[in-house]
Amino acid sequence: MSKKKLLVATGGGDCPGLNAVIRGIVKRASAETDWEVWGSMEAFNGIMHEPLRLKRLDDAAVAGIHVRGGTIIQTTNKGNPMKYPERQADGSTRETNRIPWLAGRMKELGFEAVVNIGGDGSQAISQALFEAGMPVVGVPKTIDNDLGSTDFTFGFQTAVQTASDAFDRLVTTADSHHRVMIMEVMGRDAGWIALYTAISGGAEVCLIPEIPYDINIVADRIRERYDDGRGFVNIVVAEGAFAKEGSVTAGKGEEGRHAVRLGGVAYTLSQQLRDAGIEADIRETVLGHVQRGGTPVAYDRVLASVFGVQAFEAVLNGNFGTLIVLKENKFTTVPIPEALSEYNYVKPGGDLVKAAKGLGISFGD
Amino acid sequence: MSKKKLLVATGGGDCPGLNAVIRGIVKRASAETDWEVWGSMEAFNGIMHEPLRLKRLDDAAVAGIHVRGGTIIQTTNKGNPMKYPERQADGSTRETNRIPWLAGRMKELGFEAVVNIGGDGSQAISQALFEAGMPVVGVPKTIDNDLGSTDFTFGFQTAVQTASDAFDRLVTTADSHHRVMIMEVMGRDAGWIALYTAISGGAEVCLIPEIPYDINIVADRIRERYDDGRGFVNIVVAEGAFAKEGSVTAGKGEEGRHAVRLGGVAYTLSQQLRDAGIEADIRETVLGHVQRGGTPVAYDRVLASVFGVQAFEAVLNGNFGTLIVLKENKFTTVPIPEALSEYNYVKPGGDLVKAAKGLGISFGD
Amino acid sequence: MSKKKLLVATGGGDCPGLNAVIRGIVKRASAETDWEVWGSMEAFNGIMHEPLRLKRLDDAAVAGIHVRGGTIIQTTNKGNPMKYPERQADGSTRETNRIPWLAGRMKELGFEAVVNIGGDGSQAISQALFEAGMPVVGVPKTIDNDLGSTDFTFGFQTAVQTASDAFDRLVTTADSHHRVMIMEVMGRDAGWIALYTAISGGAEVCLIPEIPYDINIVADRIRERYDDGRGFVNIVVAEGAFAKEGSVTAGKGEEGRHAVRLGGVAYTLSQQLRDAGIEADIRETVLGHVQRGGTPVAYDRVLASVFGVQAFEAVLNGNFGTLIVLKENKFTTVPIPEALSEYNYVKPGGDLVKAAKGLGISFGD
Amino acid sequence: MSKKKLLVATGGGDCPGLNAVIRGIVKRASAETDWEVWGSMEAFNGIMHEPLRLKRLDDAAVAGIHVRGGTIIQTTNKGNPMKYPERQADGSTRETNRIPWLAGRMKELGFEAVVNIGGDGSQAISQALFEAGMPVVGVPKTIDNDLGSTDFTFGFQTAVQTASDAFDRLVTTADSHHRVMIMEVMGRDAGWIALYTAISGGAEVCLIPEIPYDINIVADRIRERYDDGRGFVNIVVAEGAFAKEGSVTAGKGEEGRHAVRLGGVAYTLSQQLRDAGIEADIRETVLGHVQRGGTPVAYDRVLASVFGVQAFEAVLNGNFGTLIVLKENKFTTVPIPEALSEYNYVKPGGDLVKAAKGLGISFGD
Repeated sequence: MSKKKLLVATGGGDCPGLNAVIRGIVKRASAETDWEVWGSMEAFNGIMHEPLRLKRLDDAAVAGIHVRGGTIIQTTNKGNPMKYPERQADGSTRETNRIPWLAGRMKELGFEAVVNIGGDGSQAISQALFEAGMPVVGVPKTIDNDLGSTDFTFGFQTAVQTASDAFDRLVTTADSHHRVMIMEVMGRDAGWIALYTAISGGAEVCLIPEIPYDINIVADRIRERYDDGRGFVNIVVAEGAFAKEGSVTAGKGEEGRHAVRLGGVAYTLSQQLRDAGIEADIRETVLGHVQRGGTPVAYDRVLASVFGVQAFEAVLNGNFGTLIVLKENKFTTVPIPEALSEYNYVKPGGDLVKAAKGLGISFGD
Repeated sequence: MSKKKLLVATGGGDCPGLNAVIRGIVKRASAETDWEVWGSMEAFNGIMHEPLRLKRLDDAAVAGIHVRGGTIIQTTNKGNPMKYPERQADGSTRETNRIPWLAGRMKELGFEAVVNIGGDGSQAISQALFEAGMPVVGVPKTIDNDLGSTDFTFGFQTAVQTASDAFDRLVTTADSHHRVMIMEVMGRDAGWIALYTAISGGAEVCLIPEIPYDINIVADRIRERYDDGRGFVNIVVAEGAFAKEGSVTAGKGEEGRHAVRLGGVAYTLSQQLRDAGIEADIRETVLGHVQRGGTPVAYDRVLASVFGVQAFEAVLNGNFGTLIVLKENKFTTVPIPEALSEYNYVKPGGDLVKAAKGLGISFGD
Repeated sequence: MSKKKLLVATGGGDCPGLNAVIRGIVKRASAETDWEVWGSMEAFNGIMHEPLRLKRLDDAAVAGIHVRGGTIIQTTNKGNPMKYPERQADGSTRETNRIPWLAGRMKELGFEAVVNIGGDGSQAISQALFEAGMPVVGVPKTIDNDLGSTDFTFGFQTAVQTASDAFDRLVTTADSHHRVMIMEVMGRDAGWIALYTAISGGAEVCLIPEIPYDINIVADRIRERYDDGRGFVNIVVAEGAFAKEGSVTAGKGEEGRHAVRLGGVAYTLSQQLRDAGIEADIRETVLGHVQRGGTPVAYDRVLASVFGVQAFEAVLNGNFGTLIVLKENKFTTVPIPEALSEYNYVKPGGDLVKAAKGLGISFGD
Repeated sequence: MSKKKLLVATGGGDCPGLNAVIRGIVKRASAETDWEVWGSMEAFNGIMHEPLRLKRLDDAAVAGIHVRGGTIIQTTNKGNPMKYPERQADGSTRETNRIPWLAGRMKELGFEAVVNIGGDGSQAISQALFEAGMPVVGVPKTIDNDLGSTDFTFGFQTAVQTASDAFDRLVTTADSHHRVMIMEVMGRDAGWIALYTAISGGAEVCLIPEIPYDINIVADRIRERYDDGRGFVNIVVAEGAFAKEGSVTAGKGEEGRHAVRLGGVAYTLSQQLRDAGIEADIRETVLGHVQRGGTPVAYDRVLASVFGVQAFEAVLNGNFGTLIVLKENKFTTVPIPEALSEYNYVKPGGDLVKAAKGLGISFGD
């Protein structure tokens, strides 16, 4: 008897815990003898083209993968089927909505349901596929913790731990040398990684996109530390942080944009601080994609594994068009459109920023 | 002008994050120029006897302590003031309630409020002091995550991470040698550390106090793994786990009790498995207090730091007789008696155990 | 044209870095287009029986394995071909030397050379095979660092790091509670892991097989620490450590042997200390096989990778009957019999023990 | 009776293990009741000016410091007494040799001997002080492992481990996304950290100052990986690596120098690769001073602790004008001038580079 086929895909930026979600789905599915699970390589690109790139996901395929970073079915930011780049007769390229075709193709290939693991962009695709008649369950993924409908997503605590470990190392050497250390972490729009890292590590300054900073306030905080005899400062800066209008010269104009393009916000901030009169040695660290890879922390492995199991149960229960979430510390599901409507920015007046300020962390505001 | 004095104490078993709570209180307090913070050494023992053992806690005293395990004001399980051992005239010892005396002594020494960081036993003391007229704020602490009134307490994720890291190491060597590995973790009454570790690590078997195990079911799970050609098994067992009535011989009678006393449940289980016919090599690991010490993971440092800040704010706001908690992912306070009334056991039919079973983990039931 | 075939095997106890050696051999071999590499599963057991269990080792097979513990071709302590258990006509079992047969079988299967990765026992087999006419290169492996002919072997620093990390966690909680912590580490005959861990961690006491301890000297060291107001003690004990004749009662007789059998030397020592009058709380940790698994530290990955490359080069150069070693910080080879003749015990009067004593570590002597 | 006084100083760049050396000296000295140890803050700056900044180093001062990065007596690259910047009457500054004055001042303050922990520059000062009549013992320190007279120095393995851990995280995400990852590590003149990290992590490309690279060879190596279907590349680049004359355009001229100044070699290399036709996504990580801080690995703690003990023993034995080293895996001493004469570059034809090439690592040559 032929089995029911489930398709699994991972889309968007890499995130520790993706493999644990995949394993959770497969382990749970293997208890149901009438199902089999397939992975589409590189998000849905694996079925957008011939030859198909599908991978059979059984217990052997997922053995031990929960401890590894990355995703065994790979991921990509390219090839969004909602805006698929199609070559035209005249040689130009036009973005086309390939969703209806894709939903049809999935059914043609015998897939009864899809679990799509990914962020905002991926879940918009989930919803479009669902509206096109494909039964879809979404699993939220965002290293930045910027999804309003879930307390946390997997990968975030791992990114914070990686950044916090690096920060700990910087603190001891900042102290020995009376230096200013700037550590740039991920967070283009949401500053959660920076905020958690700053609290965990005990930073003096934390700069995030949600709170534009006044460079003179930052410089004053630094001088205050040097005056009180402690003589070292550790700064966490999110890649998307920026100075208030009018408070800086560096990082502006052509040279400034060049600096940002070449070396990121850490180098720009460094220059701004020198411009603002800071004479202490300043050193920069840019963690980059180190935050997106590697073995997930236990918290994320548990969260991701449970998400995986529950995603398959949502499939069994026919609970489609929904996202698996942890809401107010309970595992549940929410309709995808509801989930997509809330973006989770750091609230400048929220509990965590207030607590951070209580710990002596300056946001430059 | 004399300052208002706050007393801080840590009681009960050690837990990663205690220092971060202390630092949170002190950093937040140092923004209020009319307060100063003092620590009582070894819970309230520091003021039960002469000479007093009090430690001034200012910014310098707490610099960098959030990254360290332990507590700079030490802790103890001994000297509960509710049942204080008093030497009698006839040489015998009698347990006396010294709470009223202690509350009076605190006021005599000029303390306006107390923040008491500790578990069930410590918070019962908090409530008794509060009822005796002392303004008290409690901060919950339990490595076992067994407190019903808060989603998590600090220290738990660190214990899980430590156990999960050790487990990862065992998996690779179990695989190379076709062995059965038994890892004993903390949890006398509640099996949370074992459950999280088993999910995080991908165990085959997880034995916890809330679900008495049938040794034959465990042995069958092991045999099944050897039959399917994978040939190795990893077991996580909570120190309080025990076999169902009638399912074992080892660990019973004098010899059994001896084994448990000498070597803990890991060794008992090992013997039970051999008695149940398992012929594969079995090896034991007993993590012990490694789980209670060391630098906290970032998650716990953030939780503990915020708890500390909020404890001082509860003092400022006169919100006494309460416990600082994270409830449904929000920081808030609950009255101490309400908090003490809920013990947080692992629910055998709860989401997490169901998910664990979905991942193929046997609980021997 | 048929290729030259190299056989690789791993034997004896598991050790972090085995996979890196295998990868080193294979990566280096893949530059020689006329060679191919095969692994025999579970030491030479893979070719001792039908069906053969051989695994083709090419670049794809070894991709990424250097970061993982264990060995992808598995290992065992059973089935030594020098003393192979053969069922006799009368139903009894007799140990037979199967080396000549094995060497013949290897040639029959077309293997031109063998790289055998393993400890003392395995290298005795290497030498026997070499004497029987099979070209063999040995790669030394011992978690215990007990091989005299090489400065270090891979795996040792990983075991020390794992033990040292656990020790760090114990120190903070020993301090907070004024406790005595006993941590048992590997080392049945050689105390290197215990010695390095004690120095790295800053232990007060280190007990090793090479220096039988007087329990009263150990107890005095503990009392001295409690007297000087520090009030906590951390002990590292090698599994093979034992008390001097006449200095203890616990751990002797039937009950003592029972304790050792059930719970290891940590529990025995704990009882001995109580018998010697120590009243402080004592807690035990038994790391067990956690020390043998998991990702190797960078030092070991480099050492193991280079050993692997050099083993293949020894094959290319016809440098057979030798062991790859790091001698006086230089990579070189030594004849196997010479290597086997030196056992590397900790020298009680050597530089490292003297330095440890200089750091205030007592060996109970 | 007044005690003999020993002065200890740490100079130059920070390095994990400095505190363990200090602790080793102090612990060993505390067994000699007629000695006491003092630290000069920030190298010899602590005694170059009034008020003196000297710190009494006794057992309490060094308790637990061996697990922490940094140095409790701080360090600096500024204020070299051999070229001391003196303000002149006309307002200008002139570099003066203050060594004779410093040696005299040390004696005046009652110091009988000095242990100076530092790199090339610091040991040149040690030698100058020794020639000026001050009994000095040197302890070598270099994160870069660039000192020819010792097999290893403490801190190096920690830097490699930190880099290797970060590298592991990059590999998994490079794989999931088919990306080129560039990780910049320390090493201005010597490429040891890059070389060890590349071997430990399994890099495809390693660029070091000792082997100028041809960008087209690097690009070819990348293309080869994409062609063979593996599709991801991890590059380790030492901060001092540079392209062969004529092989690049980026990183040259004003814009290039600007890039290097702002963002380091990782960003320059990234641009060079794009110029050389690499179309894959490239991402950069700059670890920076994360490599210099934090808790040392066990290997370094042992090495540093033993160096510390032996430094004090050299003082006791009157073995002055020497450096404590590990030479051919033996602890010994060498005269300082001999030690300074050998700079330890990576040898392009040495064992380690050959092994790395055997593992498939390209150096762009």
